Amino acid sequence: MPDPVQIFFDSVLPNKLPRPESYEAYSPSNIALAKYWGKRDQTLNLPLNSSLSISLGHLGSKTHVSSATDGVDGVWFDGDKLPNQSRFAQKVLAFADLFRRGQNLPLHIVTKNTIPTASGLASSASGFAALTRAISGAFKLALSDAQLSMISRFGSGSASRSIWHGFVCWDRGVRDDGTDCVARQLPHHWPGFRIAVIPVDTDLKSVPSSDGMRHTVATSPLFEAWPEHAEADCIRVEAAVLARDFTVLGETVEANALAMHATMLASRPVLNYLQPASWTCLETIWNARKAGIEAYATMDAGANIKVLFLETNRTQIETLFPQGLIIDPFADHTQECEFSK
Amino acid sequence: MPDPVQIFFDSVLPNKLPRPESYEAYSPSNIALAKYWGKRDQTLNLPLNSSLSISLGHLGSKTHVSSATDGVDGVWFDGDKLPNQSRFAQKVLAFADLFRRGQNLPLHIVTKNTIPTASGLASSASGFAALTRAISGAFKLALSDAQLSMISRFGSGSASRSIWHGFVCWDRGVRDDGTDCVARQLPHHWPGFRIAVIPVDTDLKSVPSSDGMRHTVATSPLFEAWPEHAEADCIRVEAAVLARDFTVLGETVEANALAMHATMLASRPVLNYLQPASWTCLETIWNARKAGIEAYATMDAGANIKVLFLETNRTQIETLFPQGLIIDPFADHTQECEFSK
Repeated sequence: MPDPVQIFFDSVLPNKLPRPESYEAYSPSNIALAKYWGKRDQTLNLPLNSSLSISLGHLGSKTHVSSATDGVDGVWFDGDKLPNQSRFAQKVLAFADLFRRGQNLPLHIVTKNTIPTASGLASSASGFAALTRAISGAFKLALSDAQLSMISRFGSGSASRSIWHGFVCWDRGVRDDGTDCVARQLPHHWPGFRIAVIPVDTDLKSVPSSDGMRHTVATSPLFEAWPEHAEADCIRVEAAVLARDFTVLGETVEANALAMHATMLASRPVLNYLQPASWTCLETIWNARKAGIEAYATMDAGANIKVLFLETNRTQIETLFPQGLIIDPFADHTQECEFSK
Repeated sequence: MPDPVQIFFDSVLPNKLPRPESYEAYSPSNIALAKYWGKRDQTLNLPLNSSLSISLGHLGSKTHVSSATDGVDGVWFDGDKLPNQSRFAQKVLAFADLFRRGQNLPLHIVTKNTIPTASGLASSASGFAALTRAISGAFKLALSDAQLSMISRFGSGSASRSIWHGFVCWDRGVRDDGTDCVARQLPHHWPGFRIAVIPVDTDLKSVPSSDGMRHTVATSPLFEAWPEHAEADCIRVEAAVLARDFTVLGETVEANALAMHATMLASRPVLNYLQPASWTCLETIWNARKAGIEAYATMDAGANIKVLFLETNRTQIETLFPQGLIIDPFADHTQECEFSK
């Protein structure tokens, strides 16, 4: 049987790649406002439901790809050369192999994250998006952003959204070959939109999200209701972005995140990413809302809480969460957006 | 249209009640091991799923009913005469009216709880079960335990299980008139079975469970999956009791409680009975299990955690939870079980 991954890459890439040039690319991290949880195809990494995210501006990954002058693949991360047998280097090189398809084109791949480690924000989305852009640039592939998004998906599902800044919707698609499963940027700027990341736990013991998804889909009695409702949430969040309705957006985002975590809590055995301190943060947010401060929570496959709010409430949020890292996703990020050789 | 409640009471009670005699009854509180959450009929108080509980032996309610010598209904609770307009007295007298059906038979109703207030255990189940037994006794009604259980249900759904000691299964039934919706005692004693109630929050601000159920059924996108899976859990717990398989019992009970709370967390707006300290207790239990101590959690419409364990692990549980109230549901409770005039 033909390999569907191979079929996809053969369809978007030329048979023979040129010798790579030096190319650097940046991609932002992103936080899903309507969550992705559960795959409809493990091989092609197709999701059961559409998702919608906000990219994190200057918090992301910068990746430089060039021809390996020593003739041997090499991977550097945050300044350190990694052993090629390390998990990180293996993932990066396996991803590069999807482009190279057996051709002898050794690469040097240098990645730096601009995400503070203490924030606990995942970097796989921005990492694979930047890697996709950088490899494509190095091989002078004339790929569209939509094609780059589809390629990124093979590294990490959420990377398909990190190809763009701002609000991005990743449509689940319906086709078995995944050719309609692609992200798109929403053309809406929302300058007052803010996110505070509240670090609760930054150690990396938690279950990787793809393992967590598999476990939830396989064992959670409540999961069967998720895909359809997550899809409805995604549509509702997109409409709220369009209408700049922060209340509908916030209420939907928070309820969507809680529903996702609820599907995990019902897994057998339990899958619990939140910690008691996460719940304390949530209670702080719920009490703030009762006091008239519009702030909403979202939570991913980890214990940290992300708070959505508007710049007008910045002072109150800083008082409630002095430890929070405040992100302005629509601030000037032209520097990071330049994809230069 | 005929009132279905009236139809039910007419079917089990004589047309005319005799003058009441003095009668005292005791009913134990109970903790659901397979939870009841969601009604299929609000008027007849019929559940969407079957549930299974363990009664709490000498923790319960003792109720004395007698003819009101002053000709006026009166309600006493834990030693205090309540105003007849108080919420508690109104509920008790409205329940008595279901028996009296307009007949002028004033009653004195005296209730005492043997449940420590600090335990945060609900007393409506034992309260309505004891009230049902006491009123039936006072009116010399020759009702079976099954009939008493069905009558108790009109006061509180979970009261239908508090008619018996030990393990009790409340079958949901399928008939619209509720005549097959009745609880039954499981004939299995398990002398080593223990429950520790870990008080987390004993203030009574939380949403009453019937309101919480309505909100969950109406708004939680995950609830649609609950009834069928809750039914499967109930069958699994009953089989585990029969087989004395504490591991299967504990795993199912804990997962069932988490799934119930998960349906609430997905409600819009969120319905959250658990507090950060509840999650700390849960983590303690999960860590204990990793260390080989078989202990499992269950949680109801409140922040307290109930821990299931076997007497062989009593010392470890006492060390982990020095504040816990340990209950031996199969201890001698003949004194409380005597339903004397």
